Amino acid sequence: MRLGDGDVVCVAQKVVSKAEGRLIALAEVTPSAEAVELARRTDKDPRLVQLVLDESTEVVRSKPGVLIVRHRLGLVGANAGIDQSNIEHGDGGEQALLLPRDPDASARRLREALQAGSGARLGVVITDSSNRPWRLGTIGAAIGCAGIRVLDDRRGGHDIYGRELQVTLINRADAYATMATLVMGETTERIPVAVIQGLAPDAVDEPASRIIRPLEEDLFK
Amino acid sequence: MRLGDGDVVCVAQKVVSKAEGRLIALAEVTPSAEAVELARRTDKDPRLVQLVLDESTEVVRSKPGVLIVRHRLGLVGANAGIDQSNIEHGDGGEQALLLPRDPDASARRLREALQAGSGARLGVVITDSSNRPWRLGTIGAAIGCAGIRVLDDRRGGHDIYGRELQVTLINRADAYATMATLVMGETTERIPVAVIQGLAPDAVDEPASRIIRPLEEDLFK
Repeated sequence: MRLGDGDVVCVAQKVVSKAEGRLIALAEVTPSAEAVELARRTDKDPRLVQLVLDESTEVVRSKPGVLIVRHRLGLVGANAGIDQSNIEHGDGGEQALLLPRDPDASARRLREALQAGSGARLGVVITDSSNRPWRLGTIGAAIGCAGIRVLDDRRGGHDIYGRELQVTLINRADAYATMATLVMGETTERIPVAVIQGLAPDAVDEPASRIIRPLEEDLFK
Repeated sequence: MRLGDGDVVCVAQKVVSKAEGRLIALAEVTPSAEAVELARRTDKDPRLVQLVLDESTEVVRSKPGVLIVRHRLGLVGANAGIDQSNIEHGDGGEQALLLPRDPDASARRLREALQAGSGARLGVVITDSSNRPWRLGTIGAAIGCAGIRVLDDRRGGHDIYGRELQVTLINRADAYATMATLVMGETTERIPVAVIQGLAPDAVDEPASRIIRPLEEDLFK
């Protein structure tokens, strides 16, 4: 495949995390008393729970089988994005894969490398799967971005009948991530990269961190 | 455009609602005491709030400028999906547009008509825009479906290294809706229909109501 101007290259978080050495052997983790207690209440491995706590700023909800936290990047979701599937569990015993340390920086580096190799002006999105409180089934979420317009702000414009639009902020980055996730599959397809072509090129360059809703707007703490 | 087997036709909720006569003149609405009080606390029109309450089973959160409810269809979101933009405000004064009464039934009817006209086996998705508690920017949500696999259930399978997958339920319908919403725009583009082509045909036919997370799993009431 030849990359062209305006193409958006979507890369699964797992391959970025692996490339950045974010794989942790659970045998090396010593759970705190807090992690042991939370693991008991959530039916989870205390060492995994310790990693989740280390990656998070707040436990949002917990119950047996469920541990929803606010990741230090601001992402609210299950287990701080830590994953144990599609990870080789070799002689070293069980392992867990953390999110990239700074996914926006990872996206910028990846973009520079891909642009240098292709000569094209590209966008890059690092994708993860995302769950929602009231809807079943995962969709994609953009956790790192470079070279794309992340939020399309149409507030203050007018609709087609001249009425002022009060709130229309379109999340383009999550839409790209969701499209890519559909092609990648999220399990055994082994397709960690998808390219979206045919988009209108856009000179805006925003990070995925723009997507995080400010804490003071959170009605569901 | 010629429709072919496996194509998924996505239609914006607004045009379906208009076609089904779901436009209500606010002048005809008499707000109850409850609606007047809730309107005061949310800085909204009491007549609009009355319509929201009529369409809902529960107020989930409210504050000035924000009214999040559970629609009787199970959808949790702002203002029960009632919209005042892109609606003609003619001599009859202000109007509001409700969601279709039964969007899955609307999708089934639309599918039958489109299949009869084209001879192709189609999927149909009625799309709405959706907001999330911790992420800025709207994405698409499938509120009515026919002829597609809505949730791709891979729980209980195995990952590429043989580890049992515990939870992987992919929301294909919302992914289609999100892709379509990106093409349609959500404001002044006047593109109420988008067709997704190139998908692998699938004999499954599920309604969008499958997406609603059961009340007993709701951690954010």
